[in-house]
Amino acid sequence: MNTSHKPIPFPRSVAANWLAQLREHSPLVHCLTNQVVQNFTANVLLAIGASPAMVVAQQEVADFSAVASALLVNVGTLNDDQREAMLAAITSANKAGVAWVLDPVAVGGLTYRTDFCRQLLTMQPTAIRGNASEIMALAGLAAAGRGVDSADDSLAALPAAVKLAKETGAIIAVTGEIDYITDGQISYALPFGDALMTRVVGTGCALSAVVAAFVSLKQGNALEQVATACLVMAYCGGLAAAQSAGPGSFVPRFLDGLYNLQPHQLKEKTA
Amino acid sequence: MNTSHKPIPFPRSVAANWLAQLREHSPLVHCLTNQVVQNFTANVLLAIGASPAMVVAQQEVADFSAVASALLVNVGTLNDDQREAMLAAITSANKAGVAWVLDPVAVGGLTYRTDFCRQLLTMQPTAIRGNASEIMALAGLAAAGRGVDSADDSLAALPAAVKLAKETGAIIAVTGEIDYITDGQISYALPFGDALMTRVVGTGCALSAVVAAFVSLKQGNALEQVATACLVMAYCGGLAAAQSAGPGSFVPRFLDGLYNLQPHQLKEKTA
Amino acid sequence: MNTSHKPIPFPRSVAANWLAQLREHSPLVHCLTNQVVQNFTANVLLAIGASPAMVVAQQEVADFSAVASALLVNVGTLNDDQREAMLAAITSANKAGVAWVLDPVAVGGLTYRTDFCRQLLTMQPTAIRGNASEIMALAGLAAAGRGVDSADDSLAALPAAVKLAKETGAIIAVTGEIDYITDGQISYALPFGDALMTRVVGTGCALSAVVAAFVSLKQGNALEQVATACLVMAYCGGLAAAQSAGPGSFVPRFLDGLYNLQPHQLKEKTA
Repeated sequence: MNTSHKPIPFPRSVAANWLAQLREHSPLVHCLTNQVVQNFTANVLLAIGASPAMVVAQQEVADFSAVASALLVNVGTLNDDQREAMLAAITSANKAGVAWVLDPVAVGGLTYRTDFCRQLLTMQPTAIRGNASEIMALAGLAAAGRGVDSADDSLAALPAAVKLAKETGAIIAVTGEIDYITDGQISYALPFGDALMTRVVGTGCALSAVVAAFVSLKQGNALEQVATACLVMAYCGGLAAAQSAGPGSFVPRFLDGLYNLQPHQLKEKTA
Repeated sequence: MNTSHKPIPFPRSVAANWLAQLREHSPLVHCLTNQVVQNFTANVLLAIGASPAMVVAQQEVADFSAVASALLVNVGTLNDDQREAMLAAITSANKAGVAWVLDPVAVGGLTYRTDFCRQLLTMQPTAIRGNASEIMALAGLAAAGRGVDSADDSLAALPAAVKLAKETGAIIAVTGEIDYITDGQISYALPFGDALMTRVVGTGCALSAVVAAFVSLKQGNALEQVATACLVMAYCGGLAAAQSAGPGSFVPRFLDGLYNLQPHQLKEKTA
Repeated sequence: MNTSHKPIPFPRSVAANWLAQLREHSPLVHCLTNQVVQNFTANVLLAIGASPAMVVAQQEVADFSAVASALLVNVGTLNDDQREAMLAAITSANKAGVAWVLDPVAVGGLTYRTDFCRQLLTMQPTAIRGNASEIMALAGLAAAGRGVDSADDSLAALPAAVKLAKETGAIIAVTGEIDYITDGQISYALPFGDALMTRVVGTGCALSAVVAAFVSLKQGNALEQVATACLVMAYCGGLAAAQSAGPGSFVPRFLDGLYNLQPHQLKEKTA
């Protein structure tokens, strides 16, 4: 029997340690992301204690990703210029030993981005973060994606995530009502977050940037680091949602929460 | 005598019905819009109960607009790549029977976008939403536009809107202190909204996206649907402005208001 | 002895006058800026009483910058298309006597943007606003920039700012914990602002847009105008930070503060 299909709870004391390290190192995350979420992604990284940088030109990306702490590649508004920049940045990051994270937004129905993401799977991503539809599509299993929303339950995508982890060596995070994070052997389940987060654009995209920030930490256990990123975002999201009248007031509370989050809070029973 | 020049009040009970339908169907709006307002537009659509998707590459737009519920075309930061993508997306939307909406930002003084928007008028837009200067310029009448602000009163543009509606078959919305919505025969006047909305970038652009969401609803009366979009935004804008100390606190309150808006509220006398 | 290295306090009564004039003229600022901060920049300009316009296509920029009140050039996400648009816009602005402002984001480590900004120095910018690393790099002095954050103290960059002012004829603003503004002869020090502003993306970029708005005012003393822009932003930033629980709640309060700021407040001792 394949134990990887039995997700286990993530030890939250581990997360507290990684958050403390993130605050200490303030990793510089080179973001090649979509046009819609650049501002929110940058503000989430700043709030959590990392530094964002959106350098996009083909003349600059390779030099920059080599000196960044981590690289984020998000294909939400992919075009030809960005595709070339992403390939150059990933090649440079890999050569320099810089971790990189893939967010395969809306992969599945659209051939252009799906083919590109399949190509990226051969370039050793450190982690991949997507919703159920996206992870199932990437793994070559059936998916019912409609644009950027996930029409599939995250648990249904866990077998696809395990397959993808084994094939690529990447940590896979399938996020949804419950988040699942797997390295193909061990799978963590994180039952946090709040449905209100799906009414704010970019919460998933920003999570992928936070994943990049955590996997940049050295001597790391990448599975733990990806799970920590998911826990931090879900924990703060749940707290902010509980205090908010809707998606508008959620955003400032969420950013304040990330900014004020203390590592020890992650160990507690709340949220 | 041309009755279309005598705008009448919009029956608000009709709006309640369309809002209920929008919530039920959660239309997927393919947005080809300007760089400045993408995030806010997406958050407005999510708050109201629709789903946004910004797919921009020429390799993807035609496939995507054919399966979307509606398409938005906003020329605020038009460039050659986006122009080609817009033409491909509109052609595909028309073939698939998908409604599309034009937002002719800053048309008038700038030849490049003005020529392009005139070309788009021949491609059967379902609706066009602009301020007085833009609608007058599109109709070939005098306008005094200075960038993206409207220097003309919306009532002064009603004849231009009627002319444009008759020539193109589109529903025309001229928005300003009072919004006018016309199909060339019947013209509705909506005296809501608040001047504070002009101090927040993208309220007009986001309204055009909401227009797209409403005109996607099937078996529809497009005139009623466009008026409903204007009413919903002006109603929630007025409420949020009354509670806000300025344009900063307006945004979260406005999004919360859209999210919490119940159809029956639109029938009431308030706001 | 070079007196320019002894910064003096900025007379705040002067700032009140310029703010009143800005409100009266509502300058139209043509922004060629980076993808991350376009929305925030536009909202800051609207809140303070100016009008933003982001016209980006090479077919339009020259016509538009000639009729705008001022032009902003920010290289944060520079690419080849934008570079050509910037050159065309600056050339047109100079011909029409329209003031223009350079924000040399992350100049120093990246050759592509550094070479471009050096080229722009020969095109008579009215003002340049950057952090210490950027100003030192532009002046050809040592800098330790890491992406978009300033690793150098703003006072350490004052000699570089003075040198740059003398060489280019531009007013130079080096912003940080304390802001320094110099024309190469007189240097003002503004000890306001708050560290929380560094946890919100785009506060520096938006300041550069506000600098453009102020230097558009006619018959002006550009040194005073640039200092006023820095004072207004730092004053409102300090007030908003004092009322905020973090960077999320800072943004709406900051925008409300800019919107509600009365000229006479700038003369008072507070903040």
